[in-house]
Amino acid sequence: MLKRQTKDFINIDPLQTGGKLTEEAKEALLEWGDGYSICDFCEGRLDEIKNPPVYDFVHKELPEFLGCDIARITTGAREAMFVVMNALAKKDGWIVMDGNAHYSSYVSAERAKLSIAEVPNTGYPEYLIKPEKFEEVLEETKRKGEIVLALITFPDGNYGNLPDVKKISAICRAHGIPLLVNGAYAVGRMPVKLKEIGADFIVGSGHKSMASTGPIGVLGMNREWEEVVLKRSKKYKNKEIEFLGCTARGASLITLMASFPTVKKRVERWDEEVKKARYFSSRMEEMGIIQLGEKPHNHDLMFFEAKILYEISKKAKDGRFFLYREFKKRRIHGIKAGLTKHFKLSTYGLKEEEVEYVLQAFKEIIEAYAKI
Amino acid sequence: MLKRQTKDFINIDPLQTGGKLTEEAKEALLEWGDGYSICDFCEGRLDEIKNPPVYDFVHKELPEFLGCDIARITTGAREAMFVVMNALAKKDGWIVMDGNAHYSSYVSAERAKLSIAEVPNTGYPEYLIKPEKFEEVLEETKRKGEIVLALITFPDGNYGNLPDVKKISAICRAHGIPLLVNGAYAVGRMPVKLKEIGADFIVGSGHKSMASTGPIGVLGMNREWEEVVLKRSKKYKNKEIEFLGCTARGASLITLMASFPTVKKRVERWDEEVKKARYFSSRMEEMGIIQLGEKPHNHDLMFFEAKILYEISKKAKDGRFFLYREFKKRRIHGIKAGLTKHFKLSTYGLKEEEVEYVLQAFKEIIEAYAKI
Repeated sequence: MLKRQTKDFINIDPLQTGGKLTEEAKEALLEWGDGYSICDFCEGRLDEIKNPPVYDFVHKELPEFLGCDIARITTGAREAMFVVMNALAKKDGWIVMDGNAHYSSYVSAERAKLSIAEVPNTGYPEYLIKPEKFEEVLEETKRKGEIVLALITFPDGNYGNLPDVKKISAICRAHGIPLLVNGAYAVGRMPVKLKEIGADFIVGSGHKSMASTGPIGVLGMNREWEEVVLKRSKKYKNKEIEFLGCTARGASLITLMASFPTVKKRVERWDEEVKKARYFSSRMEEMGIIQLGEKPHNHDLMFFEAKILYEISKKAKDGRFFLYREFKKRRIHGIKAGLTKHFKLSTYGLKEEEVEYVLQAFKEIIEAYAKI
Repeated sequence: MLKRQTKDFINIDPLQTGGKLTEEAKEALLEWGDGYSICDFCEGRLDEIKNPPVYDFVHKELPEFLGCDIARITTGAREAMFVVMNALAKKDGWIVMDGNAHYSSYVSAERAKLSIAEVPNTGYPEYLIKPEKFEEVLEETKRKGEIVLALITFPDGNYGNLPDVKKISAICRAHGIPLLVNGAYAVGRMPVKLKEIGADFIVGSGHKSMASTGPIGVLGMNREWEEVVLKRSKKYKNKEIEFLGCTARGASLITLMASFPTVKKRVERWDEEVKKARYFSSRMEEMGIIQLGEKPHNHDLMFFEAKILYEISKKAKDGRFFLYREFKKRRIHGIKAGLTKHFKLSTYGLKEEEVEYVLQAFKEIIEAYAKI
């Protein structure tokens, strides 16, 4: 059998802390594991299936949750971004995106054959995306060609920075450019509503932040984009072209639906998660491990600079793998093997005693290796 | 909890018979259900993950199974078709596809902005795709513009017809046109090798025919297409653009891998499945229910014309829903609610006694309603 080595570990991998299944999702996963089981009573399109209640989920609950007019399911956040980019793409068109954007935003834009302009961040130590800079790049790029879309990552997956998305949205609107918010690390973790932001599209990731099995994503949009993004096939009148008819036709959607009541509730406790992250960050700094990115921090994803661990790695028996080994020994998973000087982690969903256990691990490791 | 109504039913839905999970896949599903768990030890790309052994699966086992040089995982067969179409697309380019193609082939081509020419089938009662007709349409279309790709569905999802794919492949080759074989109902059910066919691309569906949770698909190709289809990002050097970096990043891939040893073995027993289907077809015809499509039939997916059931539906209390209700009562799932005159079903994987049970159900229903 294919065994997962890290199954019962404390997980601090930012990619994984928001995607852990709820008990409801685990049950649903087995119930609906068989291929295409979700299509038992399909009448032609995934989002219109009534049993299980996909229709209500996609057309009522999800738009309400995302604060938007229309929602769709995709096979992931990146696929949702590509849907929008491909639908809005024009010959010689440009996209402007923040320099902290996930690589898949960039690759999606390449696939949609868009030229890409990036808004640089402020660099070490905060790496912020400033609205003024965003506007500057918009204006520069406008002189090169037509901008069909702007994209802001909220928060980014490296530093967990939350840019002033309302301000950026207002700037884009003033320039007549639609804005897509990549909320892969926001939707399902923290409260976020498209209407409040004022942007045109919002993208979320089920397996990253909505307690779901992958691959699954969500897309929310304003009604004004309906005709462009939900354009239908000429021959198959009810099939939406950009979604190839149906998208996540399987158990991943069931887990998203099963976890949804829990996810809705947990975003309301977001302030507790921020408090926990800030506490963790402050304790790390006491050990000489510096948190980069926004400070005080506003998200559970944190990037650290640990010169002290880097120094140890130069002398340790396992070299740069010593940190990974030490954490593995303590059944903690999530810091990439080989990293010591810079790494990211997430405290999302960790219990108080787990936070202390992880902090204690750092402390012990530093103390133990200080002697060598 | 989200309960599946049809869970322990005998399943004859062509969409579902090949996608039922193996016991190994069920275990793996729970072990790896959490979002992004497959990425525990990722070093940058899904297909290169060593633990679990995705690398070996994608780069060794899968190409061997598909009889091709290079394989990739996608989020489904349609997504695999779109990958190829989008990579090969040119301005004003054409695609030629068989008239029995799945709707998603058509929609994928629309998404890739290709003009579409369809090769008509021979019509009632066999609906065959003839190689000569394929060539005729290729030649006609060539006069209209550049054909960037041809597509043949093997077998199609309506009649379960298996066209002479080697001959069609030879024709395409002679015309210098790459051929994609949509094997969503072949790969994982019957032996099929790209090299033996002589085509350029083959596509399979995990949730349809490889005992996997959806959404998941496979793509096999000849090495000559590597540079075009696997083109990499300019900025992120190891990310393949058409795959947006990574595709089925979740438990669906794990189920595909877990079921794979069983799937490899079951394709070797394909002749038993064909025999079973032919037996079923002959017994149905004894009851006056005519099998359309190829005869003798070569696939478990069969399309039936049942005038006798249609006549009953005119008088039955539940009208055209009587058949669905009768089957539901007998815990048989798979004939779409409301259909009586024409319907498709699949005998794939059914035990002998289950085949008899389904046949008996038809017999009983016809006899019971003959009296009204």
